[in-house]
Amino acid sequence: MHLIIERNRFVHDVQRVAKAVSSRTTIPILTGIKIVANNQGITLTGSDSDISIETFIPKEEEGSEIISIKDPGSIVLQAKYFAEIVKKLSGDTIELSVQDQFATTIKSGSAIFNLNGLDPEEYPRLPQVEEELVFRLPQDILRNTIRQTVFAVSTQETRPVLTGVNLETNEEQLICTATDSHRLAMRKTKVVRNDEQLTFENVVIPGKSLNELSKIIDESNEDIEIVVTDNQILFKLKNLLFFSRLLEGKYPVTKNMIPNHYKTTMQVKTKSFLQTLERALLLSREAKNNVVNLKTLEDGLIEITSISPEIGKVTERIQSEGFDGEDMRISFNGKNVIDALKVIDSDDISVEFTGAMSPFVIKPIEQDHYLHLFSPVRTY
Amino acid sequence: MHLIIERNRFVHDVQRVAKAVSSRTTIPILTGIKIVANNQGITLTGSDSDISIETFIPKEEEGSEIISIKDPGSIVLQAKYFAEIVKKLSGDTIELSVQDQFATTIKSGSAIFNLNGLDPEEYPRLPQVEEELVFRLPQDILRNTIRQTVFAVSTQETRPVLTGVNLETNEEQLICTATDSHRLAMRKTKVVRNDEQLTFENVVIPGKSLNELSKIIDESNEDIEIVVTDNQILFKLKNLLFFSRLLEGKYPVTKNMIPNHYKTTMQVKTKSFLQTLERALLLSREAKNNVVNLKTLEDGLIEITSISPEIGKVTERIQSEGFDGEDMRISFNGKNVIDALKVIDSDDISVEFTGAMSPFVIKPIEQDHYLHLFSPVRTY
Repeated sequence: MHLIIERNRFVHDVQRVAKAVSSRTTIPILTGIKIVANNQGITLTGSDSDISIETFIPKEEEGSEIISIKDPGSIVLQAKYFAEIVKKLSGDTIELSVQDQFATTIKSGSAIFNLNGLDPEEYPRLPQVEEELVFRLPQDILRNTIRQTVFAVSTQETRPVLTGVNLETNEEQLICTATDSHRLAMRKTKVVRNDEQLTFENVVIPGKSLNELSKIIDESNEDIEIVVTDNQILFKLKNLLFFSRLLEGKYPVTKNMIPNHYKTTMQVKTKSFLQTLERALLLSREAKNNVVNLKTLEDGLIEITSISPEIGKVTERIQSEGFDGEDMRISFNGKNVIDALKVIDSDDISVEFTGAMSPFVIKPIEQDHYLHLFSPVRTY
Repeated sequence: MHLIIERNRFVHDVQRVAKAVSSRTTIPILTGIKIVANNQGITLTGSDSDISIETFIPKEEEGSEIISIKDPGSIVLQAKYFAEIVKKLSGDTIELSVQDQFATTIKSGSAIFNLNGLDPEEYPRLPQVEEELVFRLPQDILRNTIRQTVFAVSTQETRPVLTGVNLETNEEQLICTATDSHRLAMRKTKVVRNDEQLTFENVVIPGKSLNELSKIIDESNEDIEIVVTDNQILFKLKNLLFFSRLLEGKYPVTKNMIPNHYKTTMQVKTKSFLQTLERALLLSREAKNNVVNLKTLEDGLIEITSISPEIGKVTERIQSEGFDGEDMRISFNGKNVIDALKVIDSDDISVEFTGAMSPFVIKPIEQDHYLHLFSPVRTY
């Protein structure tokens, strides 16, 4: 292999595939980035076997040359050093050449690096994905959907399936759900499918994969194509493939958890409710239980309190914008509600209670494409 | 105590004194911030017994009222919670009142915090500093002097005196020195003294104190007044006092360590030398010894190399701007030299060698108010 490539473009793509590489892998070859050069351009691959990222840099783009390929070939280079080295190079171009025994020379500006490469034949093949079930949605909407659900996945390995976000289709919608069994975040979004007959359920993507993916997709409304198979999901962007394994196991049926009648509903300003809870949490965080108490008063006033025996007490009253139903007294995990309020884009929310011992719902006013559900906390 | 104070000013000063408070103190009262209100204004104090910060907020400033003092008095409040609470309050003003048993109420906007305060009588008195030896210099120069020396202090407690920066006077100059015995940073600066007869030496300020101080002083050229006593140093700014204890023990005499003749001198561009060493360090960091090799070639060319048996090798040549003397081959700790190059403000530096086994000097060209000294590393 021997090629000369534009520095900035190469650095950009090396950083991208390096995101998939873990230094804690048990498979030595996966600490590397695989580079394959052919007459069309070069392909870079990084993987930790859960996530794999493959990018392609074409030889030419819009009439201008990006890579001059002297000699096709392939090599695997230690991601940790290679990604840092290319970032610190000072030339406009980088010359990459592989000699005997995978010895690789990188030249740029006045610097010459001689690195010990690894055998590209040892690098595992990426999963072969058959494109039976394909759907697409705009990147910015996918990004928002991830943001509004992934924070609620479980961080505990006791029920591995809960560490992922569940995807299922429902007529023309995609429904994404995350829950750690104390709180639940649900978001629906319209998608286009290659075949309206094809549906799926119980497609559970690890939260970690979605967090990595959302670093790569941007705010544009360009479509992203998603291919679902039995044990893999593939996200296709221009010149980039992002593979993730799916979690095994049956995701709980969450549909029936969401109450469909309410004893008490109130409308509040998202921001002021959030700030009030953040102040209350300053003390309840100390007590390590994050418990915040809510009590309705007369005339739509709501009182939020929190107590830490050692430090003190905080009391705050906020005026609801609308109130209907019975008086309510409930305690909940303030941090969980704050997490949800931070991802709600709407200025006004509706809080809906079915009882002091039953789950309650927070959702944006006049929108039903997402909601958050919370278990109350017993305080007696 | 009962007062109403402008929120922003109060938050600013609480954050400042909170910097001195450590949560790891063994003296419980020092986890708090002391607030004293009298008819002139309020004084805030935070301390970890090594560093103490005292700020004063006047009742009025430039004709406008900052504090309305209803009732003078004093209280100590847990810094950790108090500093976070005032930051999160939403009102324009904060009302602070102390009831029986140090119970304190903080009101702002719609929030009411009831905090358990501590007895202000238990709070230790700040050191009494007699103003015998006073000197002053502009804040921005002090800040720069700290930046250019403090990074070189030792982080090891085996010789505690080396964890500080040594101050001494020399005719009309202040000389600041830091060394961890492998490298040395020295900076001279002009100061004004209250009494030209007064001199001092062996005034060693803990590096940690100087790092905290440099977060407080700003880029202005307003003077800062410095009072030196046997075991304390006091920095006086408008409405702020910063006390630090001094380190005990004899600071080594460093004057004779600095060579005054050279076998080889070369001039290089600071930035390109820095970037070359950073690239070399990418590999030597892996070998955990940070060793970088320098070799002079013909025509003022300098070759920098670094080798990590596992990863590979880097070679880079840079052209010196000027060269004089014998050929040189030397190995050194690249990270130490990079640390120094990062604080040098000059575009061009002079590197001066006395031999492969002797310390070498880096200093800005045509300036002699600061220099950096490095021990070579034996590589055979």
